[in-house]
Amino acid sequence: MKVSPLAPAGFPSIPPIAGVRFSTSAAGVRYPGRTDVMLAELAPDTVMAGVFTTSATRSAPVLDCQAKIAGPSTGPAAILVNSGNSNAFTGQAGVEAVESLTARVAEKLGCSKDRVFTSSTGVIGEPLPYDRIEAKLDELASSLDEGGIEPAARAIMTTDTYAKGAFVEVEIGGEPVRIAGIAKGSGMIAPDMATMLVYIFTDALIGQPALQTLVKCQSDLTFNCITVDSDTSTSDTLLMAATGASGVDVTDSVTFNEALHGVMLDLAHQVVRDGEGATKFVTVRVTGARTNADARRVASAIANSPLVKTAIAGEDPNWGRIVMAVGKSGAEADRDRLSIRFGDILVAEQGWVSPGYSEEQGASYMRGEDLTIAVDLGLAGGMATMWTCDLTHAYIDINADYRS
Amino acid sequence: MKVSPLAPAGFPSIPPIAGVRFSTSAAGVRYPGRTDVMLAELAPDTVMAGVFTTSATRSAPVLDCQAKIAGPSTGPAAILVNSGNSNAFTGQAGVEAVESLTARVAEKLGCSKDRVFTSSTGVIGEPLPYDRIEAKLDELASSLDEGGIEPAARAIMTTDTYAKGAFVEVEIGGEPVRIAGIAKGSGMIAPDMATMLVYIFTDALIGQPALQTLVKCQSDLTFNCITVDSDTSTSDTLLMAATGASGVDVTDSVTFNEALHGVMLDLAHQVVRDGEGATKFVTVRVTGARTNADARRVASAIANSPLVKTAIAGEDPNWGRIVMAVGKSGAEADRDRLSIRFGDILVAEQGWVSPGYSEEQGASYMRGEDLTIAVDLGLAGGMATMWTCDLTHAYIDINADYRS
Repeated sequence: MKVSPLAPAGFPSIPPIAGVRFSTSAAGVRYPGRTDVMLAELAPDTVMAGVFTTSATRSAPVLDCQAKIAGPSTGPAAILVNSGNSNAFTGQAGVEAVESLTARVAEKLGCSKDRVFTSSTGVIGEPLPYDRIEAKLDELASSLDEGGIEPAARAIMTTDTYAKGAFVEVEIGGEPVRIAGIAKGSGMIAPDMATMLVYIFTDALIGQPALQTLVKCQSDLTFNCITVDSDTSTSDTLLMAATGASGVDVTDSVTFNEALHGVMLDLAHQVVRDGEGATKFVTVRVTGARTNADARRVASAIANSPLVKTAIAGEDPNWGRIVMAVGKSGAEADRDRLSIRFGDILVAEQGWVSPGYSEEQGASYMRGEDLTIAVDLGLAGGMATMWTCDLTHAYIDINADYRS
Repeated sequence: MKVSPLAPAGFPSIPPIAGVRFSTSAAGVRYPGRTDVMLAELAPDTVMAGVFTTSATRSAPVLDCQAKIAGPSTGPAAILVNSGNSNAFTGQAGVEAVESLTARVAEKLGCSKDRVFTSSTGVIGEPLPYDRIEAKLDELASSLDEGGIEPAARAIMTTDTYAKGAFVEVEIGGEPVRIAGIAKGSGMIAPDMATMLVYIFTDALIGQPALQTLVKCQSDLTFNCITVDSDTSTSDTLLMAATGASGVDVTDSVTFNEALHGVMLDLAHQVVRDGEGATKFVTVRVTGARTNADARRVASAIANSPLVKTAIAGEDPNWGRIVMAVGKSGAEADRDRLSIRFGDILVAEQGWVSPGYSEEQGASYMRGEDLTIAVDLGLAGGMATMWTCDLTHAYIDINADYRS
């Protein structure tokens, strides 16, 4: 698999987060010759928060995490993730796999089973061969390393073309606080159903309800604003662990909130930049809507439209398709108040193409790699931004291949 | 453009509908060397009904038709359609084009301007060169022919790969009644934004409110149940004309309603079979939902999922993606009550793959050209059916080409 042309230069340099250690192993769940399991050990009293897919057919590990996430924060905790098999739509066998894995990890690390969170990503509907993972737990427990975040990011990849990481250090009350995150995801893919998994670690000190609120709020502004192909997975999971090891209380800290936003947005953009077959990174910005919800409807209709996305792939400044997407979105819109911009170029206004616009300008802009489509509805103050990528032949190649 | 592999053997044989005459002309709106305007003249007192796109950015001709459709049914009427330019997002110039065209047609045919209905299909946002059409009105008016429905179906094509027609004759109270229809549409396409246009003609006698109710109801069961790419056009229009020339009153006739359903479903399926790049015709049938609306949510999520559609293109019986689409649909679903069938083959039930299912069975089924995906949610009696096609490289080829 060729690395996405939109990939960042490399994995960022991420120093240790006090209270977090990682290990990885090649358990052979599905992929031969590569690591496919990662374990993160979290210091005693680490506070956990999380957001999860709203799919009605979500996987056994997701259901288990959801049940545990708001539980007590006493004692050590752990996150175990495998790639290659999503343990979704696997009936009672899926539940048994999660039960067994969490019990065995708890035993190895000396923590409560209720503090072991698992994720699985890969093919749907096949039993998870969890004995292969359990056979590697001794190796995983004995090789934990606070510098192991990059190998961890690699072990959770399915059809991602690069490992995704982000890091920031901020000062709060004169003390440094670190936030590091890793993510995987690039759409959905044969042979596997790839899904989005995100793990964020901080040494900040914060209570569970406050952390959960932050994580939920920032997810809505970051991961819930990206789309590759409009298809929602059965396994999407974001877990955040705050070890408290820095001793810095970040409750109500605007600096921390903004830093967390930055890390999450960075990872979210990296997922889009690894979108299956992507060659363009596209920001869709909608303003002037009657409400924020209406703005989001319009942004989503544009960002998910196969016709808009194929036009972008063809470097065609086809603003007629933007008009089409606005029209079908269900949001209040008035043709004669609508304006459309490609970057800074005013393309359409007052119900028609702008007098100053030339097709050459638009075509030249579309040849860029990072594009912004801005729509102003001219009605009120509602706004929303979404990020997406183009729809190319490579998406069809990746997804129309037979699984086996 | 190669004819779709899913095309019917040929245009059906359609006898005249008493009270309707057609003519066509090559006005050079956009396409050189082909007919691009059709005129249908309708006998005095023809009753008109119609359904239209709900797009917030709908075109000038659509807005004009909507304003006129429920008006008085006295005097002759006419339908004028051009391909090559949709007269959408053309501001005040678009309104002027419709005003001028309808006035000139009314003059030529001796009818009220309020009884002239126009449609335009093609590129968005460019002024309609309506002088070119007006220059052909004498030719159009003098060549009207009751046998001209097939050339009419050809003149309204944009990127359709075949002309679409359907016909039925039924007996009501011992008297024959005819219904004939033509349609165009195959998705959206560069250089043009293709849209769906449908014209249905009958010699039945029926009042406007009754006809409007029938047309609306049957649209919901036919044209509103198909999807090629989930993108809704700014010009979708269905017009039905009942000339009354047979003298047979069909008000409240179940036979007529069923016959109309048949013609509309036939045309709707022909649009899907000409879906851009389509190689498979797919019926998505959902039963057992909590409500009909929930069933439609699930059917729509499956029929519009790029991952389901690329799997079908790859002849991959990837039922995991069906599970994914059910999960994301927003409808009530219970993983353990869900069952999935490919044709008659039970694939998944009780939260997992069916014990009797073999991948070879599924793979063999998917090699067919007409496929049925059936999902039973096992909750209550809600049901819905939608029709779609696969998503192939040809869709990208057609839509990622630069317009000019």
